[in-house]
Formats: sequence, structure tokens, C-alpha cells
Amino acid sequence: MNNHRPIRTVFFVSDSTGITAETFGHSLLAQFPDTRFQQTRVPFVDDVPKAQDCAQQIQKVARETGQRPIVFSSLVNPESVATLREAHDSALFIDLFERFIEPLENELGQRSAHTIGRFHGVAESGDYKKRIEAINFAMTHDDGVSSASDLVKADVILVGVSRSGKTPTSLYLAMQFGVKSANYPLIPEDFERNKLPGELHEFRNKLFGLTISPDRLSLIRQERRPNSHYASLDNCRYEIDAAQKLMRRENIRWLDSTTKSIEEISATIMQTVRIETEF
Amino acid sequence: MNNHRPIRTVFFVSDSTGITAETFGHSLLAQFPDTRFQQTRVPFVDDVPKAQDCAQQIQKVARETGQRPIVFSSLVNPESVATLREAHDSALFIDLFERFIEPLENELGQRSAHTIGRFHGVAESGDYKKRIEAINFAMTHDDGVSSASDLVKADVILVGVSRSGKTPTSLYLAMQFGVKSANYPLIPEDFERNKLPGELHEFRNKLFGLTISPDRLSLIRQERRPNSHYASLDNCRYEIDAAQKLMRRENIRWLDSTTKSIEEISATIMQTVRIETEF
Repeated sequence: MNNHRPIRTVFFVSDSTGITAETFGHSLLAQFPDTRFQQTRVPFVDDVPKAQDCAQQIQKVARETGQRPIVFSSLVNPESVATLREAHDSALFIDLFERFIEPLENELGQRSAHTIGRFHGVAESGDYKKRIEAINFAMTHDDGVSSASDLVKADVILVGVSRSGKTPTSLYLAMQFGVKSANYPLIPEDFERNKLPGELHEFRNKLFGLTISPDRLSLIRQERRPNSHYASLDNCRYEIDAAQKLMRRENIRWLDSTTKSIEEISATIMQTVRIETEF
Repeated sequence: MNNHRPIRTVFFVSDSTGITAETFGHSLLAQFPDTRFQQTRVPFVDDVPKAQDCAQQIQKVARETGQRPIVFSSLVNPESVATLREAHDSALFIDLFERFIEPLENELGQRSAHTIGRFHGVAESGDYKKRIEAINFAMTHDDGVSSASDLVKADVILVGVSRSGKTPTSLYLAMQFGVKSANYPLIPEDFERNKLPGELHEFRNKLFGLTISPDRLSLIRQERRPNSHYASLDNCRYEIDAAQKLMRRENIRWLDSTTKSIEEISATIMQTVRIETEF
């Protein structure tokens, strides 16, 4: 980390949680690795007085730092937007909605709802309930605690050796996509048989394997159980080799998670297992 | 759900996972509740041939449905963008990057990196490691399995009765913000004493409470343990009442999770506990 990079202040302003604006803003700012960004979240700006407060906060930072803050706004209410824009001279104001709503209105032949925020009422929506159910499912079916009747309900069954990345991946699949994922750890008995555990056979089309480099696996396991046989490089080499042999033999689609983020792993799984969603 | 709403096809095209584009696209399309959207993800479009394939896929859908698909693109590579734009007449093409990169370049006095995707190398970044550590922390410290030395490491300690929403919230805080969150369930012994458990006193500034309506709590608990005292409406009323009394007495900031999404709860916690992040 180069600490001599200049710092700029960024505001994420939203009438709801601001999480979408923040995530999107991060991906834009990632294009500018030579600058460090200090961020302030201003969520729940759902009336004009709050927009006024926020505009003052932005102007204050501009005065104090002598630099224009970068303001990402996903405010929908036109009055609030206008209020925030009053800070315009002292900030770079980036409206994440305005630009896209009009072409969509023209294309769909509809006016936009101009509802405040996308998360209002979300907690009651079927989509949201599906995500929470999927999180509970992942928590309950982590680490192979699954019966055949549970595996029927799973959208995906992740197989791989212990600590190959199954748990964070299944939680991400649940949280982002509402996908129910069960974990099925491959253990020495499976390797000795060099066969898939019997109960997995009928769920072949849901299986997805994760593998990892032995070095990385050993490091991760050392943190859990230092100086154990379980964490030793030799044992990690043996397990990974045996697991890959098994997955090849059984024709299971798999991915090396060593240098992949849970976002990358999950997007690949969604593409491979072909889970379609409508919203 | 009104199934007579017209259906439109939406593509999310990205050189990386496409998850940012998809989340942002959803929040735009949520402004048009009278249309149903059938979505196709096209991640990892990281060369021109893949962009050509994708353009053909879009044109095919346009022919087959007789309607212009809506295409959200977060492609960065100019050649790939140009290739995808060839499908322009048969689709509404929404470029999520183009519009914002130029004003940012001007403001920062830098050219953008035009790197492919934000997630490349992400798995090695400090930010990413922090998120994975936080997920592991949440998994290990779910349901009060925490010693004082663990609580020191927590950024937030969520308190509340069993099934009040602590677990999904702590997982979301970890996954989205890299925030380490420990759960501390309030149990009948705490209510009888009407005092905070001793080990929590020194972490007062990290505490955040969750409460929930007794009806909703009873429903959730019924799914776990049908017809139990634990799930009975009377017991839920008692526990919630006692927990709120305790939180008021101890001056713990809290939120009613009944109609709130984990995004809303988490954004409120981030705002209240004032966890700042730099990136």
C-alpha cells in the first residue's frame, strides 16, 4: 500500500441503505488505483431536511480539505436531488439514477415508480424471504450435516476437502442469489474408495467441486490446528491429489479457488449449474 | 405477483463476475414494477470473441421474442464494448461505466486504469482477506461462543433473544463490509438479573441490540421447534418484553428487525457504531 497516494473524500448518499451505490461506486473508483479514497456513508436520506444536512456536510469537507469531495447519489426524490445539487460547486456530483431512468422509461413505455429506495418493503418480498431461507439452509447444511431429503432441497452441492472454500462460497450464494447450497466435505474414506459417497449419486447435476493449492490449504489449516497432521503440507498434497482424482473420475465440474474471490467462484457456479432467476 | 405483466429480457454483461452490474441493474429496474424481467447473466466476457458471442446471443433473443432486450454492460475494454454495441439496434444498450469514468478522470486529473474488472487480484487484496476473516469470525462466534479475548476482536457485538435476526445480520456485515461481528444471545438468566452479562460491560460501545415483534418471533421459532414452550407466543412476548426492558435499562442502542431487511439493519449498525472504512 503506497501511503503517499493523494486522499480524496467520497460520499455515498442514498434514500435507502446506500449499499448498491457504494458497491457500484467502489467498482468505478477501482479504476483509479493512484488515489486513496476516504469514504462517508449517508444512508436513509429520505426527506429534504436530511438532504440539506448532507449538503452542508459535503460543503464542510470541501472547505476543510480544500478539495472537492466526490458524491455518489442514488437519491430518487427530485426535491432531495435538487437540494443535494446545491453543494454542486464544491463537489463532483455523480447521480447514479438520472442518466439511466429516462432511456428505460422510453424503452418500456412506462414512467418509473420514483419510489424511495429499492429496499422499502423488501423484507416482505418473496425474493428476500428466499435469501434468508437460503442463509439458514447454508448454516444448517454446512459441513456435511445433510440427509438425502435435505440434499433434494439444495440447488447446489459443493464438494471438496475441508477448508477448500465451501463455507464462504455457500454463504455468498445464499446471500447474493438466494441459492440453497449444501456442503459435502470429501474425507479420507472417500479417497480410499475413490468413489463418490453413495447418497450423492442421484444429485450429480447439482454437484460442483472446489479445489485449492496444497500450499495455500496447509497455510489455512495451520491457522486452525497448528502443527497437526491435518495441516501438514504432505497431508494437504495427498488430500488434494486424491480429491482431484476422484472428481475427474466422477466427472464433477470443479474450480481451483486458490486465487479466486467468492464472487468469482459463485458467478462461475451460477453459470455452470445454470440456475436461472426471474425478478 | 401479477403474472399478466409483460416480460422483458435483461442481459448483465461483464468482463468479471457481473455481480455489481446485476445488483445495480436490479435497483434501476425496481423502478418499473409493472414489468417482469427475465435475466441472463453473461460474466467473464474478457476478450473480443466472447463479446461477439454475447452480441449474437442478444440478437437471437431479440428475434425470438420480437422485443429489444435490455443490456446492462460493465465491460471496460473499448474493443469489447464496440463489439457489443453492434447489437445496438436490436437492444437497449446501457453502459454503466462510460458515463462516469470521464468526469472522474477530469476530477482526479488521472486516466482510469482501464483494467479488466474490479475483481482481478481481489482475492489477494487486504480488503478481501478482511472480509473472509470476518466471515470466519461470524461463523465461529455465532450464538455466544465467545470469550472476552474474542469480544476484544469484534467490531460489533449483536445482542438479542434467540432468532431475532443476529445470525444473518452478522454474516451480512462480514460479507459486505468486512466487519467482525459476534452474537450474544440474551437468555432467561439475563432477564432475571435484568442486568447485562458481566463480560459485556467493557464492550459497551460495540453493543447493538435487535428486537422483533412477538408474533413474528413465534412464527420463526415454530418452524424450528413446533409446539414448544420456546416458540409459544406467551414465551416470545415475555422474552421480547424482558429483553427490551434490559436494553433500555442498559442504554443499548437497538432496532426492531421485524420489517427490516439485513441490508437496512446493517446500514443502520454501520451508521450507529460508526465504523469507518478506507479503500
